[in-house]
Amino acid sequence: MGSRILLSVLAGEIGARLQGEDIEVSGIAGVDEAVPGQVTFLSNPKYLLRARETKASAVIAKQPISGLGCAFLLTPDPYLAFALAVEQFHPPVRLAAGVSAQASIHPTAVLGKEVHVGPFAVVAEGAVVGDRVTLYPGAYVGKGAVVGEDAVLHPHVTLYEGVRVGKRVLLHAGCVIGSHGFGFAPTPQGYRKIPQVGTVEIGDDVEIGANTTIDRASLGVTRIGPGTKLDNLIQVGHSVEIGRDTVIAAQVGIAGSARVGNRVMIGGQTGLAGHLEVGDGVILGAKTGVAVSLKSDENRAWSGVPAMPHRTWLKMATLLPRLPEIFRRVARLESGKPAEGEE
Amino acid sequence: MGSRILLSVLAGEIGARLQGEDIEVSGIAGVDEAVPGQVTFLSNPKYLLRARETKASAVIAKQPISGLGCAFLLTPDPYLAFALAVEQFHPPVRLAAGVSAQASIHPTAVLGKEVHVGPFAVVAEGAVVGDRVTLYPGAYVGKGAVVGEDAVLHPHVTLYEGVRVGKRVLLHAGCVIGSHGFGFAPTPQGYRKIPQVGTVEIGDDVEIGANTTIDRASLGVTRIGPGTKLDNLIQVGHSVEIGRDTVIAAQVGIAGSARVGNRVMIGGQTGLAGHLEVGDGVILGAKTGVAVSLKSDENRAWSGVPAMPHRTWLKMATLLPRLPEIFRRVARLESGKPAEGEE
Amino acid sequence: MGSRILLSVLAGEIGARLQGEDIEVSGIAGVDEAVPGQVTFLSNPKYLLRARETKASAVIAKQPISGLGCAFLLTPDPYLAFALAVEQFHPPVRLAAGVSAQASIHPTAVLGKEVHVGPFAVVAEGAVVGDRVTLYPGAYVGKGAVVGEDAVLHPHVTLYEGVRVGKRVLLHAGCVIGSHGFGFAPTPQGYRKIPQVGTVEIGDDVEIGANTTIDRASLGVTRIGPGTKLDNLIQVGHSVEIGRDTVIAAQVGIAGSARVGNRVMIGGQTGLAGHLEVGDGVILGAKTGVAVSLKSDENRAWSGVPAMPHRTWLKMATLLPRLPEIFRRVARLESGKPAEGEE
Repeated sequence: MGSRILLSVLAGEIGARLQGEDIEVSGIAGVDEAVPGQVTFLSNPKYLLRARETKASAVIAKQPISGLGCAFLLTPDPYLAFALAVEQFHPPVRLAAGVSAQASIHPTAVLGKEVHVGPFAVVAEGAVVGDRVTLYPGAYVGKGAVVGEDAVLHPHVTLYEGVRVGKRVLLHAGCVIGSHGFGFAPTPQGYRKIPQVGTVEIGDDVEIGANTTIDRASLGVTRIGPGTKLDNLIQVGHSVEIGRDTVIAAQVGIAGSARVGNRVMIGGQTGLAGHLEVGDGVILGAKTGVAVSLKSDENRAWSGVPAMPHRTWLKMATLLPRLPEIFRRVARLESGKPAEGEE
Repeated sequence: MGSRILLSVLAGEIGARLQGEDIEVSGIAGVDEAVPGQVTFLSNPKYLLRARETKASAVIAKQPISGLGCAFLLTPDPYLAFALAVEQFHPPVRLAAGVSAQASIHPTAVLGKEVHVGPFAVVAEGAVVGDRVTLYPGAYVGKGAVVGEDAVLHPHVTLYEGVRVGKRVLLHAGCVIGSHGFGFAPTPQGYRKIPQVGTVEIGDDVEIGANTTIDRASLGVTRIGPGTKLDNLIQVGHSVEIGRDTVIAAQVGIAGSARVGNRVMIGGQTGLAGHLEVGDGVILGAKTGVAVSLKSDENRAWSGVPAMPHRTWLKMATLLPRLPEIFRRVARLESGKPAEGEE
Repeated sequence: MGSRILLSVLAGEIGARLQGEDIEVSGIAGVDEAVPGQVTFLSNPKYLLRARETKASAVIAKQPISGLGCAFLLTPDPYLAFALAVEQFHPPVRLAAGVSAQASIHPTAVLGKEVHVGPFAVVAEGAVVGDRVTLYPGAYVGKGAVVGEDAVLHPHVTLYEGVRVGKRVLLHAGCVIGSHGFGFAPTPQGYRKIPQVGTVEIGDDVEIGANTTIDRASLGVTRIGPGTKLDNLIQVGHSVEIGRDTVIAAQVGIAGSARVGNRVMIGGQTGLAGHLEVGDGVILGAKTGVAVSLKSDENRAWSGVPAMPHRTWLKMATLLPRLPEIFRRVARLESGKPAEGEE
C-alpha cells in the first residue's frame, strides 16, 4: 500500500508505454474509487464514460481517453497490464515457514522445505507435502495424498485419501477434493453403494474456488488439467476429465464421466450431463443445460436448455415472451379474420 | 420447553389480543404437530383446512377460525407474532464466556469482553473480535479481520484476511467470506491471475447461510448491506454490492460487480450476470436468469430465462408445453385444410 | 490392490456365472483402463464398442460380448455385480479405534465402543456417538446430537445442536446438518428472525454428499428417510421430509416444508418450491423447476421449467430453437403469401 513507484518504472514492469508526465504513484483502484496519486485502468469499454470522470493520476488503457488530462499507460492488453500493476503494489506475501505446535502431522508424513502449517491443519499417514506449501488452519491432507510445491490450501480444505494436487495450485476455503462419486446399484433391498476407489489428480497452476467439490473416480482418475480455473460451489462428478486452461464459473455442475476439453469457457449455473464430451474451445453461456456432446466446430458458443447455438438462443429468447401472441395470431388465422391491426 | 405462560401474558408479549379462556400454555408447534396445552399459528391461508383440525389450545391468527373451539391470539401479523411467541418459549441462549485452551489466538489479536471461543477456533494476527462474540469450534478469523459485537460464527466459518463483519451478524457453518474473486487475464501462456486485494464488508444484522461463499473485491469492497439475509449455498462474486433488508434464497449466484438494491427478494437458484443493477424492491422468481439491469418501476416481479415480467412468464409458461400443437396448427393452415376439429 | 482371486471364486462372491478359463485376477478397472490380469464390466450399452477393445482378462456382463476372447462373469445385473466385485478387491477399511489426544470431547458426551476420533474433532456437551463411529479430523458433533452406530463423518462435517443421525450413515466432508431454516417476518424495522428451534433426523444408511446443507425445522423435524442418497452441494430447506431410498443428484434445491416421497429420483440442479409434494417413484429430470405438487400416477417422469411430462418436454425442447421460424411462417400466412418453399 505504502509503496511509491514512478510511472516510467511501472510502465516497464507492465509492458506499457507512458504518455504524459512521469510522476510517482502510490496505488491502484477502480475508475470510480481512484484518488489523485493512484493509477486506474480501462479494459471493458462499458466503463468509458465513468473512466472520463476518474480522479486517478494515470490510466492503463489501449489508447488515450479524450477529455482526460492525466497520464496514460498504453498497451494493447490493458487487463493483463492491470493484473501486473496490481502485483507491483501488492506483491504476493507468503506466510512464514514453520509448523504450528497445534497442527497434527503423522510421523510417516513427509513435509518439504519451508512449508507453513497453521494450527489444526492435518497431514495424515504417508501424505507428502511439497516445498513452500502453505496449509492454512484446519486444512486437511488425507492419507497418502500429495501436494505439489508452492500450493496453498486455505482453511478447511479437505483432500481425501490419495488425492494428488499439482504445483502452485490454489485451493480456496472449504473445497473438497476426492469425496465419493455418486454411484449406487439398485437392489430389491435398496441401493448398494459402488465403492469409490479411484482418485483425483489436479494439474499444476489450477485454482479451485471456495466450497467447490470434486469427486474421486469410482475406478481410475478424475482429472483437472493444468492451468484450469474453477470458481466457487462447482460440482465435478466422478471420473470427469477437464482439460487445460479451461475456465468454469460458479455453481456449474458436471456429471460423472463427462469430458471437457482445453480452453473451454463455462458460464455460471450451467449443467453438463454425464458421459458426454465438450470439445476444445467451446463456450457455454450461463444456465445452459448440456445433454449431448458438443464438438469444437465453427459453432463454438452454446446457450439454453437444452443447449442450442448461442445465436439461435438469442433469437429464441427474444420471442419467448411473445408466445401468447403467436397463439392469438394463429387462432385468428384459423377463424378467417384478418390479422391483428392488419399487420 | 418446560416454561409455562398464561395466554394473556403471551398476548401482551407478542402484541396480540386474547379471545377465549386465559389458560396456561407450555409450548408452540405447527398446526399438525401441536398437542393440547400448546399454541400454534395460522399465517399462510393454505393451511386453513389443516388448522381446523389442530389439537392446539390456542391459535395465533388474523381472525378466529370458524368451527375451532380453542382460544385465539388475534393480530394483524400472525407470522411476526409467531416469531415473538417462539422466542418466549425458546429464549436465545448465549454460550458461556471463555476462551478454550484448545483455541489459537494470536498474541496481537484483540478479543472483546465476554467472548466465547470454542476449541480449534483461530483468531489470526491483528484480528479484532467484538464483545460477546461467539466463535464455535473451527471458526477462523483471518489476519486483520474484524468481527462486530454479538456476532456468531458457527463451526468452520472462514473469514479471510481483512474482512469486516458487522454487529449481531449470524454466520452459518462452512460459509466463506473473502475468498478470491474469479479474475484472470488470458495470455498466450495461459491465464494470469488478477490479484484480489480488495475486501468484504458485511453490515449489521446480516445472516449468511451454511456453505455460502462471498468473494472479496479485486480492488475496493464487496458489500452486503445491513439487515440483509442470505440463505445456504449462495455465491456472491467480487465487487458485488447488495443493499439493505434484501432477502436471497438458496443457491442463487450473483456475478462480479453486480449491484442489488434494498428490499429486493430473490428466489432460489436464480442467477445474475455481472456488471448489472437490480433496483430497490424488485422480486425475482426462482430459477430466473437476469442478463440485463432491472429497474424498480411499476413492474417489480420478474421470472424466466432470460428474465421477463412475471405475468408474461406465467402466460408463456402455460403455453410452452403446447409448442408442438402450434407447429401442427400452422402446418395445417399452410396446407389450406380447416383448423383441427374446426376450432 | 495386491489381492488375487480365482474367477470361479469371484463369480461365487458376486452372484455371476463364469464362462471361460478359471484364471486368477488381481484387480478391477474400467473398460479402457483395464490391463491383462484384471476384470472389467459392461453395464451401460453405450460402452459396448469400447468394451470390445478392452484388454481385461474377464468382463462382468449380461451376456458374452461377441469378438472378445476373454472370460465372462455373466449375471442379469452387471452393475450390482460390479459393486460387489469392487468390494472384493477393495474391502472397506475402518480406521483404528482410538480417540486423538488433540480431539475435544465434552465430559458429558458419551462415546460408544471402538470409535475413531481424529484430531480436532469435537463432541460437544451431552452428545452421543454410537459404537464404531468414525469422526475424521475437524468433524463437529454439536450439543446433544446423536450419531448412530457405524456412521462416518468426514472432515469438517457440522452437526448442529440436537441433530440425530442414523446407523451406517456416511457424511461427506463439509456437509452441514441442522443449520437454521430461512424464515424471517417482515417488520417496518426490517426482518425479524423466526427462531429455528426444531431439529433434523437422518435415517439409517443415508449418504450425504460434500458441502450439502440440511436446515433444521423451525418447529418439528426435517427428515431424511432411511436408505436415501444425497449428492454434493444440495440444499434441503427447513421442515422438508424426504422418504426412503430416494436419490438426489448434485446441486438440487428443496425449499421449506416440501415433501418428497420414497424411491424418487431427482436430476442435478433441479429445484422444488416450498410446501408441495412429490409422490413416490416420481422421476425429475435435471434442471427441472417444480412449482406444484406432482402425484405418483402413470406419468412419472417430469422435466422443464415449469415441470411438464418428460415426453412433452422432449417434443417442446426440439421445437424451441424453431420459434423464430414459426413467427416467420405465421407472418407469411397473415400476408396471404404461400408458405415458405411451398412446404
